[in-house]
Amino acid sequence: MPLPITLLTDYGHADEFAGVCHAVIAGIAPQARVIDITHGLPRHAVRQGAVVLASSLPFAPPGVHVAIVDPGVGSERRPVAVRAREDGRLLVGPDNGVLSLAIERFGGAEQAVDLTASPYRLEPVTATFHGRDLFAPVAAHLSLEVSLAEVGETVDPASLHRTDLPRPSIESGRIVAHVLYVDGFGNATLDLGHEQLAATFMRLGELVEVQAGTAKLTVPFGRTFADVESGTGILYEDSSHSLALAINRGDAASRLGLAPDDEVVLRPS
Amino acid sequence: MPLPITLLTDYGHADEFAGVCHAVIAGIAPQARVIDITHGLPRHAVRQGAVVLASSLPFAPPGVHVAIVDPGVGSERRPVAVRAREDGRLLVGPDNGVLSLAIERFGGAEQAVDLTASPYRLEPVTATFHGRDLFAPVAAHLSLEVSLAEVGETVDPASLHRTDLPRPSIESGRIVAHVLYVDGFGNATLDLGHEQLAATFMRLGELVEVQAGTAKLTVPFGRTFADVESGTGILYEDSSHSLALAINRGDAASRLGLAPDDEVVLRPS
Amino acid sequence: MPLPITLLTDYGHADEFAGVCHAVIAGIAPQARVIDITHGLPRHAVRQGAVVLASSLPFAPPGVHVAIVDPGVGSERRPVAVRAREDGRLLVGPDNGVLSLAIERFGGAEQAVDLTASPYRLEPVTATFHGRDLFAPVAAHLSLEVSLAEVGETVDPASLHRTDLPRPSIESGRIVAHVLYVDGFGNATLDLGHEQLAATFMRLGELVEVQAGTAKLTVPFGRTFADVESGTGILYEDSSHSLALAINRGDAASRLGLAPDDEVVLRPS
Repeated sequence: MPLPITLLTDYGHADEFAGVCHAVIAGIAPQARVIDITHGLPRHAVRQGAVVLASSLPFAPPGVHVAIVDPGVGSERRPVAVRAREDGRLLVGPDNGVLSLAIERFGGAEQAVDLTASPYRLEPVTATFHGRDLFAPVAAHLSLEVSLAEVGETVDPASLHRTDLPRPSIESGRIVAHVLYVDGFGNATLDLGHEQLAATFMRLGELVEVQAGTAKLTVPFGRTFADVESGTGILYEDSSHSLALAINRGDAASRLGLAPDDEVVLRPS
Repeated sequence: MPLPITLLTDYGHADEFAGVCHAVIAGIAPQARVIDITHGLPRHAVRQGAVVLASSLPFAPPGVHVAIVDPGVGSERRPVAVRAREDGRLLVGPDNGVLSLAIERFGGAEQAVDLTASPYRLEPVTATFHGRDLFAPVAAHLSLEVSLAEVGETVDPASLHRTDLPRPSIESGRIVAHVLYVDGFGNATLDLGHEQLAATFMRLGELVEVQAGTAKLTVPFGRTFADVESGTGILYEDSSHSLALAINRGDAASRLGLAPDDEVVLRPS
Repeated sequence: MPLPITLLTDYGHADEFAGVCHAVIAGIAPQARVIDITHGLPRHAVRQGAVVLASSLPFAPPGVHVAIVDPGVGSERRPVAVRAREDGRLLVGPDNGVLSLAIERFGGAEQAVDLTASPYRLEPVTATFHGRDLFAPVAAHLSLEVSLAEVGETVDPASLHRTDLPRPSIESGRIVAHVLYVDGFGNATLDLGHEQLAATFMRLGELVEVQAGTAKLTVPFGRTFADVESGTGILYEDSSHSLALAINRGDAASRLGLAPDDEVVLRPS
C-alpha cells in the first residue's frame, strides 16, 4: 500500500486546480488514498493554513501531507519536502511557513530537501502552478516510498521558514487575545489554548465581557452552541482546543467585524 | 472489502471539517470507499438533509450512511446508529430527524444504538465536533463489520426522532403545495410526489397558474428546462420525482422569494 | 483494475448532484478510482468546460472522462460516448461541444455512440439528471472495460458537435485577443497560446498597454504573480500555456469588467 496523501490548499472549488493535482497523483500512484483536508482556505492565508494543518494532521494517518498556500509561487521562495521527527510524517509545500506549525507539532524537522530541481517534477514547470508540476508528482513518489533524498537537494532543516503567531497577554482580570482565524461559519478562533485557559479567570458557565473593536458584549463561557439561544454569543473551547467566539446560528465575525490579528479583550463580568 | 461509507453534512467546503472526517476514517478503515453525497447543505437545514438523504441513498450501494446536520451538537440530543430493515443499511448521525426519512425509505428501523459512550469514540469527545470524534470513527468501524451492538447502547427504535413534512392540499381545481427546499440553482422542490401528481388536474404540456406570495405567473408543466425559453418558468417532475418550479437558466427562488415551507398555489390556466 | 474515471461538471457543491454520480459509480465499479476535475464550472458554460477539460486531461491517466455542462439536458441533444485516437481515452457527455476540444487534443474521434437507449441507463431516465441516470452508469461500465459498441448505438464521429473558439487578430504592433474564460480568482485567460505568443511583439519583462472596454492599463509581461506588487496587473503565460491577465492578490475580471468573449487589445508600451 502506498502512504496516504493529504491535501490542503487555497485553490478553492471553482476551478480545476485541486482536481488536476488529484489527476497527477492518480497517474503516478494509482493505489494511493488521497484525502482533501480542505481546498477552501482564504486565498493566500498562509498562517491560517499553518494552523489548520497542524490541528488537522493529528487526526490523519501518517503519510505525505501537502499544503499549498503560496502567494509567492514561482518567485524565490523554495519548494520543500520535510520529514518530521514523529511518525515519519512527510510534509510537502512552499517554504513560507505554511508547513511550520505541523512540523513543530510532530517533533520538528529531521530532514529537508529543496524541490526546485526535483527529478520528479513535471517539465516544463510553470511559474504559477507548482501544485500540479512539483508538489503533486513529488508527493505521489514519496507515497510510493521514494526516499526524501531522492526527490530534492538536501537543505538545513534549521533554515526552514517559520510562521509567527500572536501571543495573548494574560493578567488576573483581563486577557488580551487575538483572532487567529475565522472559519466558514464566522466563528473566530483566538490565540488562547486549553492549557493557557486553565490559568485565567474564565470558568465554565460564567459570564465574560468581550470587547472587540468598538463592539462590546457579555457572553457565557460555555461548552457548545446550543448552550445559548439562537442569535446569542458564546465563548467556548473549539474542536482544536482553542478559545473561540461564536454566535449560535449566527456569524460572530461579521457581526463584530472580526478579522485575523484583531484584538479581543476579555474581562470577568 | 469494507462497506462503503457515504457522508452528507452541512459542514461546507470553506473549512477542514469534512476533510478531517475523511482523515479519521482513513486511519481506521484505509480500504473503505468514502462517497461525499454533499457537504453543501444550508447550515442547520435538518429537514432538507433528511429529504436529500432519502432521495440519494437509493442510488448508493448499501453501506454505512452518515448524515450530520446538527444544530444541537453537544447538547442532550442523542448521537445514534441505526440499522434499517432493507439492505442492512446502517445510518449514523444525530437523532434529530435527519436520518428519519432514509430509515423509512428502507423499511424502518430494525435496531438502534446510542453512541454517547461508544467505545469507538475519540477521546476527549469535544462538544462541537461530533463528526470527527464520534460519527466518523463509529462509521469506520461499522464499515469493518463491527456489529451495531458493539458500537453503542441499545435504544428502542420507536424512540427515534422523526421529521415532519408539510402536506399539500389537493382539490379538483386548486393545489396548495409547499416548498420542501431550494437547490443551489434556485429550483424549488415542492411537497407533491409522482403518485400525488397523477391525481391532480396537471397534465404534461398544459399551462398552470402559479401563485407564490404576491407573485403570480403562468408556466407550462413540462419535462425539462429546455422545454421553455431562457428566463421562462416551468413546473416539472424533478429527479427525485417531486414537482419542482424552475426558471430556465434563471433562479426561481430568488425571483419569487421562495423559501422552505412557503405556500405555492397551483390552478389550471 | 478498472479504468480511472474523471468527472467535470457545472453541478456545483451546494447540492448532491455530483455526489450521487459518485454513488452510482461506486455501486457498479467499486474499485474504480474517481477523480473530480471540478464541479465548479459556471453554470451552462459549455465552452469553458471544453477548454478546461482539454487542458486538464493531459495530466490525468487515460480512462473514462465524463464532462457534463448540459443546458439542453432532456431535449434533442444527444448523449454520447466517444473513443479518441490517442491513449484509447473515452469521453462521455452531452454532444454539445463540451467534449470536442479534448477529443481533438487526443487525435480526434475514432468511434462514437449515442447513449439515448443505452442498456446501461438507469430506468426511468429522468429528463433533468442524465449525470445520474445515463452518464455515470455508462462511465462505470466503460471503466470495467465494457466495449463502446455495447453501451450505445454507433453514430458517425464526423457528426459530433464542435465548439467554436474565438481567434485573436495578430498584427505587428497590435493584438486583438478575447477572453476565453475567467477563473475563480478573477484571472482572465485569453485566446492566445504559447506558439502564437512567440510570433508577437511581446517579450518577457517588457511593458504592454492593455485596453479592455473603456479600461486601459500598462502592465509587464511577466512570469508569475509575485513579479509585480500587490494590486498591480500582469500579463503572463498561465498553466495552460495561454496568455492571461491577472492582478496580483486582486481580481482582474471584476476590476476591468471582463467576461468571456470580451475583446482585449494589446499594444507595445
